[in-house]
Amino acid sequence: MKTSTTKIDIQKASRSKIKNVDFNNLSFGQVFTDHMMVCDYKDGMWQTPTIKPYGPFELDPSAKVFHYGQAVFEGMKAFKDEKDQIWLFRPEKNFERINKSSERLAIPAFPRDYFFTAMEELLKLEREWIKKGFGNSLYVRPFVIATEAGVSAAPAKEYKFMIICSPAQAYYSGEVRVQISEKFSRAADGGVGFAKAAGNYAAQFYPTNLAKDEGFQQIVWTDASTHEYLEEAGTMNVFFRVGDKLLTAPTNDRILNGVTRDSVISLAKEYNIDLEIRRVSVKEIIEAAKSGELKEMFGSGTATVINPISGFGYAGEKYELPKLEDSYARFFKDKLTKIQYNQAEDKFGWRYLVK
Amino acid sequence: MKTSTTKIDIQKASRSKIKNVDFNNLSFGQVFTDHMMVCDYKDGMWQTPTIKPYGPFELDPSAKVFHYGQAVFEGMKAFKDEKDQIWLFRPEKNFERINKSSERLAIPAFPRDYFFTAMEELLKLEREWIKKGFGNSLYVRPFVIATEAGVSAAPAKEYKFMIICSPAQAYYSGEVRVQISEKFSRAADGGVGFAKAAGNYAAQFYPTNLAKDEGFQQIVWTDASTHEYLEEAGTMNVFFRVGDKLLTAPTNDRILNGVTRDSVISLAKEYNIDLEIRRVSVKEIIEAAKSGELKEMFGSGTATVINPISGFGYAGEKYELPKLEDSYARFFKDKLTKIQYNQAEDKFGWRYLVK
Repeated sequence: MKTSTTKIDIQKASRSKIKNVDFNNLSFGQVFTDHMMVCDYKDGMWQTPTIKPYGPFELDPSAKVFHYGQAVFEGMKAFKDEKDQIWLFRPEKNFERINKSSERLAIPAFPRDYFFTAMEELLKLEREWIKKGFGNSLYVRPFVIATEAGVSAAPAKEYKFMIICSPAQAYYSGEVRVQISEKFSRAADGGVGFAKAAGNYAAQFYPTNLAKDEGFQQIVWTDASTHEYLEEAGTMNVFFRVGDKLLTAPTNDRILNGVTRDSVISLAKEYNIDLEIRRVSVKEIIEAAKSGELKEMFGSGTATVINPISGFGYAGEKYELPKLEDSYARFFKDKLTKIQYNQAEDKFGWRYLVK
Repeated sequence: MKTSTTKIDIQKASRSKIKNVDFNNLSFGQVFTDHMMVCDYKDGMWQTPTIKPYGPFELDPSAKVFHYGQAVFEGMKAFKDEKDQIWLFRPEKNFERINKSSERLAIPAFPRDYFFTAMEELLKLEREWIKKGFGNSLYVRPFVIATEAGVSAAPAKEYKFMIICSPAQAYYSGEVRVQISEKFSRAADGGVGFAKAAGNYAAQFYPTNLAKDEGFQQIVWTDASTHEYLEEAGTMNVFFRVGDKLLTAPTNDRILNGVTRDSVISLAKEYNIDLEIRRVSVKEIIEAAKSGELKEMFGSGTATVINPISGFGYAGEKYELPKLEDSYARFFKDKLTKIQYNQAEDKFGWRYLVK
């Protein structure tokens, strides 16, 4: 898929910040590497991708991203194996999805060869920032913002596609409890919920703050029309284990088609885990929790990989889940991370070597 | 309401750009005045508001506004009367609404005295940019963006509240036809549709582009659950005149509580126009169009004031509306603009003199 014809303009940083970074004590998304990728869209086309020293840049106060939220992003991770090889996990999926998100936000599609060539050049330049060992990774954040000046409410004619990188350990610490939403919603039918549109995330902050006040870390969103069906959490898709059956909602135009979600589904099929992809009602989960049949809940997402959920709240009641020895969450996390770190066979062809 | 204690730091531009501006040939929101207001939020409080020369500013690539769309805005207009006095129209409403929007987006509220004092100082500095005569105004754009660096999906701890100003003539030119949405949605119940959240606007660009391809300028959104009820257009609330009865949808958590909408409702009551604020179904409007009872549709909004709608499309059919001599649209526009330009009595106390 790679073309050797893509020219990348590379300006190396005069010195690295890496010595100042404590890799054993990282907060998610706070420290960035020495370089970033920037590609401008103007005059109807994407210009030459540039890798340059990471740092602030100037925008006009009327830039459309500030006023109309015309912005999309992706989240990926790069892993280093014991032989110092760098791997990405299913990057084709992220590439497809950022362009799908862009289409819904009226942003021009980014070329495949620019995406892969620029990202790989950037990762090679930052290879010292990628640490070995389970849990360690380089979080890769491609994003697009509308930079054109002017406050007319119409799609911009100028954009920046950027990639920034942040060294990461595990995303969550401690136990995660979720609140099932009864009133607030994440997305509408016919809206932008399936896209990684910037505005989808800010819209969750206030309800999530209210949930935090009640002792929960995230919200599990329900459908906006009835609030009877479980959809996804703020930064994760959600799975439920009732008995030994695994349940998750089908994707639609409200629910993000998560790469980790898709991988869990493939692994469940591979390992003959009983899986149903169908609408999951709040009612059945509450009943299963009461009867003891609800054995597990977990979230899936690039940042978190697999995140066990230890309890949930609904309608003022709190429910605690059992602590299992043979949890599906641990099983999938183990399978996924071993593939990601090149410690297991890659039957599905998910690993992507950065050369 | 004003306090004299608010200190504003004013840095005047060394020279004005105004001589380069053709005030008879303005595109909406493309030209900005010589100054802007900037107020930073950090260390848990809003700092001293600053008025400085208009120009670009730097942000970190990981600023949360780029990734999570944590941003809200307002739209207002300043008018100049024949005595060179500067007037705002119901600015208290905009102040209340931006803080309501901010609350929903987990952005700290902006202090009332900062808002009014800083905006008025800015308008006085830019008084030459406000031209007399109906249709001429200075469009005032307050907005707030999350500036904190870092891509963790949580509310920022740093923001910029800014006000920029753009000289304006009429917002729309030519006839406006709208498409009634059958599939796409603007907002969910329990979502952020009532807020002037940045992301609400980018989400409309793609469906609006599709509508434009079919010959329409805007979309009239319907409820996301059933698409049976008419809600609002992208940048306007919408009114329907069936016979001599005026209809408009009630505001709710999906629909923006427009200042112009509210003013039209007050004027309708004052002038004994038969008004019903209730859910308006697509079906009844189609039937009224077919029977000839649908006499008018118009939009209301700060940028557009009152915008007559000359026709609409639904389910592949196009409907043209009659051209009326005694249109409500013209009536309301005349009443509103005369109040705005200090040419009529202001019974409701809507005008606000900038002193």
